[in-house]
This record gives sequence, structure tokens and C-alpha cells, in this order.
Amino acid sequence: MTGPRITDLVASLPATVPFVGPEELERRRGAPFDARLGANENVFGPSPRAVAAMQEAAAEIWKYGDSASHDLRAAIADRLGITPDHIVIGEGIDGLLGYLVRILVAPGDVVVTSAGAYPTFNYHVAGFGGRLETVPYRDDREDLPALLAKAAETGARLVYFANPDNPMGSCIPGDEVAESLEALPADALLVLDEAYLEFGPDAAHVPLPFDDPRVIRMRTFSKAYGMAGARVGYAIGAPALIAVFERIRNHFGMNRTAQIGALAAFEDRDWLAHVQAQVAAAREEIARIARDNGLTPLPSATNFVTVDCGGDGARARALVAALATRGVFVRMPFVAPEDRCIRISCGTEADLAVLAKALPAALAEVT
Amino acid sequence: MTGPRITDLVASLPATVPFVGPEELERRRGAPFDARLGANENVFGPSPRAVAAMQEAAAEIWKYGDSASHDLRAAIADRLGITPDHIVIGEGIDGLLGYLVRILVAPGDVVVTSAGAYPTFNYHVAGFGGRLETVPYRDDREDLPALLAKAAETGARLVYFANPDNPMGSCIPGDEVAESLEALPADALLVLDEAYLEFGPDAAHVPLPFDDPRVIRMRTFSKAYGMAGARVGYAIGAPALIAVFERIRNHFGMNRTAQIGALAAFEDRDWLAHVQAQVAAAREEIARIARDNGLTPLPSATNFVTVDCGGDGARARALVAALATRGVFVRMPFVAPEDRCIRISCGTEADLAVLAKALPAALAEVT
Repeated sequence: MTGPRITDLVASLPATVPFVGPEELERRRGAPFDARLGANENVFGPSPRAVAAMQEAAAEIWKYGDSASHDLRAAIADRLGITPDHIVIGEGIDGLLGYLVRILVAPGDVVVTSAGAYPTFNYHVAGFGGRLETVPYRDDREDLPALLAKAAETGARLVYFANPDNPMGSCIPGDEVAESLEALPADALLVLDEAYLEFGPDAAHVPLPFDDPRVIRMRTFSKAYGMAGARVGYAIGAPALIAVFERIRNHFGMNRTAQIGALAAFEDRDWLAHVQAQVAAAREEIARIARDNGLTPLPSATNFVTVDCGGDGARARALVAALATRGVFVRMPFVAPEDRCIRISCGTEADLAVLAKALPAALAEVT
Repeated sequence: MTGPRITDLVASLPATVPFVGPEELERRRGAPFDARLGANENVFGPSPRAVAAMQEAAAEIWKYGDSASHDLRAAIADRLGITPDHIVIGEGIDGLLGYLVRILVAPGDVVVTSAGAYPTFNYHVAGFGGRLETVPYRDDREDLPALLAKAAETGARLVYFANPDNPMGSCIPGDEVAESLEALPADALLVLDEAYLEFGPDAAHVPLPFDDPRVIRMRTFSKAYGMAGARVGYAIGAPALIAVFERIRNHFGMNRTAQIGALAAFEDRDWLAHVQAQVAAAREEIARIARDNGLTPLPSATNFVTVDCGGDGARARALVAALATRGVFVRMPFVAPEDRCIRISCGTEADLAVLAKALPAALAEVT
């Protein structure tokens, strides 16, 4: 191209994006979806106290946010019984994963993940020139011992592991994670994506101190707190590692209203419990709808249910398309054999009624 | 440190940050400021229509933002008479500058800027391993011909130039910028930071087509639109260059409410005119206060007035500190001889009354 020369690394990157967003899909189909169940958003919404706090703060949006996210970090730290220097707030887990990869991965460095795990993480690894090594899922779960063995074999700097897992919804006990970590190579780091932690069983919590230098945990206000559009995630880890984010992060990158809303959401424990109950009920309803249609819902520790459609990726892709035609937005795993499934986010009763109506016709079309 | 090994590049970066934010300064002094005039925020605030739109959208924050920022890009493109593929929306100009540096600057590549210009840009250059070459200001203006000569001499990939300028408030006519660009090396790019454009004279607009491959323009909703806390900036350039941002940007990084508010703000031309008038009046008042105290206000094409305090950097630093003690937050240029000045953002009448009261005492203390 005429004009400036881009770096060799960026020139080598594909123009594809990890996810096409629901609004873009709606523009392509020329109509809004009737049931938005594809992005694992929390349809039950944020705490009313968070909404009120954001509304009250709207007129003060002329002020930059607090570059230190002091109050939010302090509240999280207090709840976890740690000091705030164990926590960095960022523009969603997506933003934090980008920073983390930049901190740890130089061109050519190896990163390990599961084949079919979070594509946005892989996007960041490619974007900084990392070399991705993958391990298959086993029995619809991420295989942590195999991930760690691959890390040792390849000299990996970083290992990605989500618990509970997306896109399969599975979860392994936190004490298994802790025990497995003994196999992590000495100069590597486990990034433990806990985006869905609040939806899982208590046993999903990993019983290791938050300053364990082998692991950094990623959590978010996008899922259980119902604030995906706010873009507030946080990483918890050893202060020496957390401090490194200060060297590269966009210090004034946080939306001020989002900071205020996240704090209000975090403090509303009752609303979180309400959402957890709603999500549990919706999971049951999705499972029922799936079974009623001869499909097999997988156990879920998240706010979505991954449904085994009993065929191959082509059939599931056709089903996703047939549902979209009928106004139902869902997604599906990318890689075989998990791509025999579709992934349905928890919806309101109205959303799930739309799903229940659309699914039989969609299935009839793809059979 | 025990644990993961960080990249050599990141290990080489300093732990310092470009700016300590006002909230952090308030925490350090143990009290809020009475007049927040240091971050070039727009105290006159966003359009009431933007506030209303954000309040109305608050409860829908459970949805991710539109990854394409379609509606906002369409509105800006329509206003400018270009297609949306000339525009990328990002997490403030700060975020976009980070992406731009990442696209163009490999370790060791040269970048040119003015000594004392925007530190956050320099932070990104260092962060991606670029080598910064600087050119002094001349007569309190950025010296574009000298910047371009330095770029040719050093083989620079990227040249930073703000017009109107921060921290000096000066501005050169857009046709001078256009003419000077003939000296830009063929494979280099000028990043034209127009954050303050709406406060400058019409002649500040650079009369070049928006798809000129030699230049990318950065604009923002943080200044004239009064939405610094929302984190919405945009870059305008040749579609081939704009498309490259898709390979690396945080696709779901935009706050949904901010997208909605920015669109409402952009469409409220009357409020923009109102703010421009308020800012012009505040500039006059700051100039008057400065002159009343024996100081020399510099001409301003921005929403701040840089005031020549007639001494050296040590004196100006002492004055900034003495004002902070009295509840007035201002900043100052970083580099001599511009650091003889302090930089005062436009404030409300109440803010400027606080300034008028504090300044004589602060001056008495530093003389």
C-alpha cells in the first residue's frame, strides 16, 4: 500500500476478528434478534443500585475516570482479604488479556491453550507474535494436566485455562487446579480465566493464596454483575506481576461511569444472589427445552448451557443459522468434537419461550 | 522476581506513569480540589441530550457494545462527507495512539515528536520499543518543518504533531500543515492530534482529503464534547490504514453507554456552540486574572490558557504546588523553556473565582 510501512508482525496478522458482534449480525440479517442468547450476556441485568449510580454519575462524565480505579480496587481487595496492589482493573478481561500477553510473550514465545478455547486470547497471542500450542479438550473439559505437560514440553511462557470453562460450561474443582499447578514450569504463568466463577459451585474456587506467583486470575463485571457493556474486568495476582501492568496499560482507559457502576454492583450482594438464582432456573429451562427436542444438555457451571446436538460441526452450524433465521442468536464451539454442540446463553422467560418455539422448526430444517 | 519471566522489552520500561490523575493527587493531599483545572477537562459538561441518552441506556449495560461502533462511525462519516471505513473508534485518543504505535513501530524504529509534547504518546512509543527523537518548540509552537526534517534525517516511521497544541495552546494554520507535509518521508506517517480542534479557529482545519495516506487525524469526545470520562476517540485516515486497526484493536473494548452518549453529543450542534462560547469567555477570564497578577497569558486555540510566569521551571513548579495547596489543580509543561509556564484549563465562573483568589497568595509564596 502507498503510505506508511506497517511492522512485519502486524503485516502478518489476519484481517479476521475473533467474534462478529450481535449488532453486526443483526445488520447483516436486516432485523434485530428476538432472543439474544449468543454472547453469554446477563439478561437479568445489573443491580438497580448500579443503574442508579451510573445515571447519577452521567452528568459528570466530563471528568476523566480515576486512573488508579482506587475505590473499586479497594472494595474488591477488602472482600478478598488482600491489599489493592494484588489487583489491576482493566477494559474487560479482553483488555487485560492483551496486556498480559504483551507483558509475557515476545515474538516466537510459546503459549499453551485448549483447542477451541477463548479465541480472543488467541487473537492477542497472535497479535504479539506468540506461537500457540494447543491441547484437545477431554470429555468436554479442558485438560489441565495435558496443558501443563504441553507447557513443559514446549517451554511455554503462558498457559490459558478457564474455570468454569467457555464454551463447554464445564468446571473442575479448584483443589484439582491447585494440585495440578505443581507441574507448571518454573518460569511460566497460568492465566486462570474466572469470568464465570460466580455461576459455578463454591468448589470451583482455587484454594491458593492470591499472591501465588504461578497464577493470575481474571474476573469480570461482564457476567454475573450484568455489565458487559461497561468493560470492567480485573486481574488478581502477585503484586510484583500486577505492578508490571502499570508500565504498559492505558492509564486513563477506564470509563468513569463504569467504575462507579461496578463499585455499586459489587456492593449489592442481594442482587448477585438474585441473578444467580435466575441463571440457575434458566439453565434448567434450557436443559428442559433441549431434552424436549431430543438434544442433550451438558452440565453447566456458567450462565449458558452447551447442548450436544448429536451430529457434527456442519449440523450444528446449520442449526445456529436456522435459529438465527428465526430470530434466535446463539453461538457454538469452534473445534471438533465440541462443535457438535450449540451454546445457549441464559435468557429471560420470554427469551426462552422464543427459543422453545424456534428450536423444533430449526431442527426440522437441518435434519 | 520469582515466577513468570516478562519480556526484555517490558522489563526495560520504567515504572513511572505519564500522568498522575486528579483523584490520586486529591488522595495524596487528603482533600478534594476546589477548582479542577489541570486535566483540560470540559467543565461545561456534555450535551444534556447526551446525559439523557446515557441515563436511558444505563439499564441495558448488560449488553456488550457494538464492536463496529457502527452508528457513531456512520454519523461522523456523514458529517465529514466520507465513508465509515475512513474512521476507527477507540478507547480515547490514548487508546488509539497505542494501537497506532503498535501498527507502525517495531523495536528500534524511530519516532519524532516535539520535546515537551504529549507524554502519553511517548509512553506508547517506549512501550513498543520505539526510539524517540525530539525537536524543540520554537516560539512556543511546535516546529513542523523541523519535525519533518528530523524524520527525514532519522528515517522515522511516525511523526507526532498536535494542532492546536497541548501544552502550549498554540495553533498553526491548516494550510501550513498541508504544505509542510510535502517534506514527510515517503514511508512515514504524520499523526495529527486534533483533540482541541473544535476550540480553534476554522483555519486550523487541514485542507487535505481525509484519505491522504500521509496523515492520520485523531479526534475525541473528551474535550469539546465534554465526555473525557467516557473514553471515546476516533481516528480518521486512508481506509487501507484504518483497516489495519481491525487486526489488533480490542474489538469489544468500547463502553456501550459511551457509544450512545457520544452519538447524542455529536448530534447536538447547539450545545457544542454553547460550550465553545463558554470556553472562549473562560479563556478571556483566565487571561485577565493572569494579567492582573503580572503574568502573561499566551494565545490559546484550546480549552486552556498557558500562562508565562516569567521565571524558570522551578518557579512554575513551585507555583503549581502553591496553587494545589490552595485547592487549585493545574499542570505545567515538562520541558524548558516552556516550563516557565503553567497551564490552566477553562473553568466555570466559580472555578475561576477560586483561581483568582488563590493566585496572588500562591505567587507571593513563590517569589
